[in-house]
Amino acid sequence: MKSNLIARLSSILTPNELLLSAEERQRFASDQSGLDGALPLAVLRPATVAALSEAVKVCAAAGVAMVPQGGRTGLSGGACATGNCVIVSTMLMSGIAEIDADAMTMTVWAGTPLQVVQEAALEHGLEYPVDIGARGSATIGGTIATNAGGIRVLRHGMTRQHVLGLEVVLPDGRIVARLGKLVKDNAGLDLKHLFIGSEGIFGVITRAVLQLRPATRACTAALLAVRDHDAALACLSAARRTFAGRLTAFEGMWPDYWDFVCHKTELAASPLAADHGFYILAEFALEGDDSAHFENWLGQLLEDGIVEDGVIAKSLSETQALWRVREAIGDVDADFGAHINFDLGISPSQLGHFCDAGDRLLAGMAGVTGTLKVGHVGDGNVHFLVGHEDDAEVSDRIEQALYALVRDYGGTITAEHGVGRLKRDWLSCCRSPKEVDLMRQLKSMLDPGQIMNPGALV
Amino acid sequence: MKSNLIARLSSILTPNELLLSAEERQRFASDQSGLDGALPLAVLRPATVAALSEAVKVCAAAGVAMVPQGGRTGLSGGACATGNCVIVSTMLMSGIAEIDADAMTMTVWAGTPLQVVQEAALEHGLEYPVDIGARGSATIGGTIATNAGGIRVLRHGMTRQHVLGLEVVLPDGRIVARLGKLVKDNAGLDLKHLFIGSEGIFGVITRAVLQLRPATRACTAALLAVRDHDAALACLSAARRTFAGRLTAFEGMWPDYWDFVCHKTELAASPLAADHGFYILAEFALEGDDSAHFENWLGQLLEDGIVEDGVIAKSLSETQALWRVREAIGDVDADFGAHINFDLGISPSQLGHFCDAGDRLLAGMAGVTGTLKVGHVGDGNVHFLVGHEDDAEVSDRIEQALYALVRDYGGTITAEHGVGRLKRDWLSCCRSPKEVDLMRQLKSMLDPGQIMNPGALV
Repeated sequence: MKSNLIARLSSILTPNELLLSAEERQRFASDQSGLDGALPLAVLRPATVAALSEAVKVCAAAGVAMVPQGGRTGLSGGACATGNCVIVSTMLMSGIAEIDADAMTMTVWAGTPLQVVQEAALEHGLEYPVDIGARGSATIGGTIATNAGGIRVLRHGMTRQHVLGLEVVLPDGRIVARLGKLVKDNAGLDLKHLFIGSEGIFGVITRAVLQLRPATRACTAALLAVRDHDAALACLSAARRTFAGRLTAFEGMWPDYWDFVCHKTELAASPLAADHGFYILAEFALEGDDSAHFENWLGQLLEDGIVEDGVIAKSLSETQALWRVREAIGDVDADFGAHINFDLGISPSQLGHFCDAGDRLLAGMAGVTGTLKVGHVGDGNVHFLVGHEDDAEVSDRIEQALYALVRDYGGTITAEHGVGRLKRDWLSCCRSPKEVDLMRQLKSMLDPGQIMNPGALV
Repeated sequence: MKSNLIARLSSILTPNELLLSAEERQRFASDQSGLDGALPLAVLRPATVAALSEAVKVCAAAGVAMVPQGGRTGLSGGACATGNCVIVSTMLMSGIAEIDADAMTMTVWAGTPLQVVQEAALEHGLEYPVDIGARGSATIGGTIATNAGGIRVLRHGMTRQHVLGLEVVLPDGRIVARLGKLVKDNAGLDLKHLFIGSEGIFGVITRAVLQLRPATRACTAALLAVRDHDAALACLSAARRTFAGRLTAFEGMWPDYWDFVCHKTELAASPLAADHGFYILAEFALEGDDSAHFENWLGQLLEDGIVEDGVIAKSLSETQALWRVREAIGDVDADFGAHINFDLGISPSQLGHFCDAGDRLLAGMAGVTGTLKVGHVGDGNVHFLVGHEDDAEVSDRIEQALYALVRDYGGTITAEHGVGRLKRDWLSCCRSPKEVDLMRQLKSMLDPGQIMNPGALV
């Protein structure tokens, strides 16, 4: 069967579009989740939508599973190969088709890296506001399929908010496209929302129309030390009252994380003289007279005791140094050892209490070696890393405990990384049986053969 | 059968929840679309979700069609009664359940009027940014079911962008609820987007969690006269470059409309000395020193010849007078006579050319008595009113011509009013057969008996 499939695919795809060597198949087996993917039968990377559609039809007819892939930067295993599957990569469908400055839209191929999209928008005085650490490798198609979040959600929302149009190849090879530049379009059901965040289980996204924004210009970054997460919320509330939409980021770091990156390792340098109960990295889009206004505002917070200490970046390099403390989360793996990277979402007003409860729960648990917590204040999203002895039973016990706590708080098991293959079995901690049933009904409707990204999400 | 149904409903609903007199049934037969609804068998307005769910189960078992209703302010006939149906009104499920200032969320019952939601948010220094002319009567449930747009879409997007959670009673009476306050939640498919904008064909929305924003404070309104729609786009582009997110509205009026409300009728008074090719009502959230900055900015546009004339409102009453010219669209019916109210969406950069082409098309058409065009510049949305002799053949010819033009421009037959019953037959002008098939598949999946709002949308 396999040689028959390969023969048929070879008649559609060029040798550059169909990778068959064991080495190349291995290269595409996994994403950045740490999950080991199976060795795929082949890697398909068509350069055109027509070729992709034909290749999908061949696989569907043969009943061969397909796993869509963008930049393979996902953290939940949604792009890892399953047994007897082919990989469908969008990497050769890359590039910007059009930028319309009046409509503030960009039409882009799915395989284009996020950073390329961001930079192209800036060249037109516009901005694509989705930003994540993996911007250099993550593709726009992958960020849409996973509804990527990141550090600008506070002001601009998730990826879903920025997609005007999509082209998708369905599991049976049909191409469904709506690539207009319409900001408002209530003509029937908005089908694109079925595909955004569906982690590839309904097909392969091939093209998108993105809504851009006027570019944010001058940015003022400040590092603020406060007592605890509740004080951070008070500070956020004050920032919103005063600066409203000019507040562009408000990231939070707990002391376990701060201590690890600034003291226990050399991942970053503390810009503060002493240690505190909670740390905020805030960014504001300020211009002209706003700067003095900002310093007065911060002075008042210091006087009122809401902020204990603070540093305002005076140059681009100081701004980068402040962000370095926050972005060091991407480099803790080597020093922190075996750990689970929880991506939890809780009502913003409850996040501090949730983390305290989580710490208490883990403190008494055998095999736990430490925690690192960093998150997006105001979004209710914490990246809660739990280090543990390298033992499957220990890690399972940690997951049981923390996901049960998430359920008790009415939170979510994944705020932005997605379910993928790693978190599928925990979905019931945050979704009712009725909701899971509806998801399965949708899956059966759009992929009755269960051949598109099987094992992911539901 | 009918008496049997009523008997069963009477065992679930109180007399105040089950209206049976011919007079009251007639009162709930239609919305504001001008379409005459049939006389419903009964009006169900349960006060609790449990009662609503039980009543829906009774109707579903009897195979009786249900038409959900909010404030009946819709313009597409989506809430008009069909033959042998019951009306399911949310009007007794009204009120604000909770406001969480830290999370900036409001949990609200579906029957709550939009204006009540707006005012309650403001009392907490927050803002619910969806705003439409019918704010006093339109319910929050109805605005969610139709994905309402309005005058703040430019800055804040459609209703869909502001809904965090929903509770829905499905066509079989099952209650599906997700009412958390999670800004970020990627745990599987985001089911709420199936229901937002679905015009009641998948069930009745009973409760919602809304995302609020920091309130916009001082607002500066200005009326600007320019040469044409392209000059308005240039002006918008300049406003976005300078004020970015502080630009809160940018409404456009064509000369046919201006002439009608300011000269031919007494609906509004022109604040300008002469007539021009296009008129803009812009609003900016400016504070302190920004005002002088704004006057300089406008002075430069006048000097550059982009703006021909302009008036800045100096007081609340002047602001209201400027808005009066724009909002007079709601009062043209009596003076303008028989007309079709098209709600068209076109790529923002093409909207001016589209309207010119529409005017040329209609100029040569027998039975056309005039046009009024008013819209949202930057959103690509025009409300294109075409007056005509009271003759079905004439109005059909006008719809044929204008919707064909929409198709040629890749636009939409409805940007914000929805499809309802009035526009269902025109859906193919802006949706492919594959898309309509997918919508029908979804309808069959969620409402196999086709009893929830039959005849609406698809």
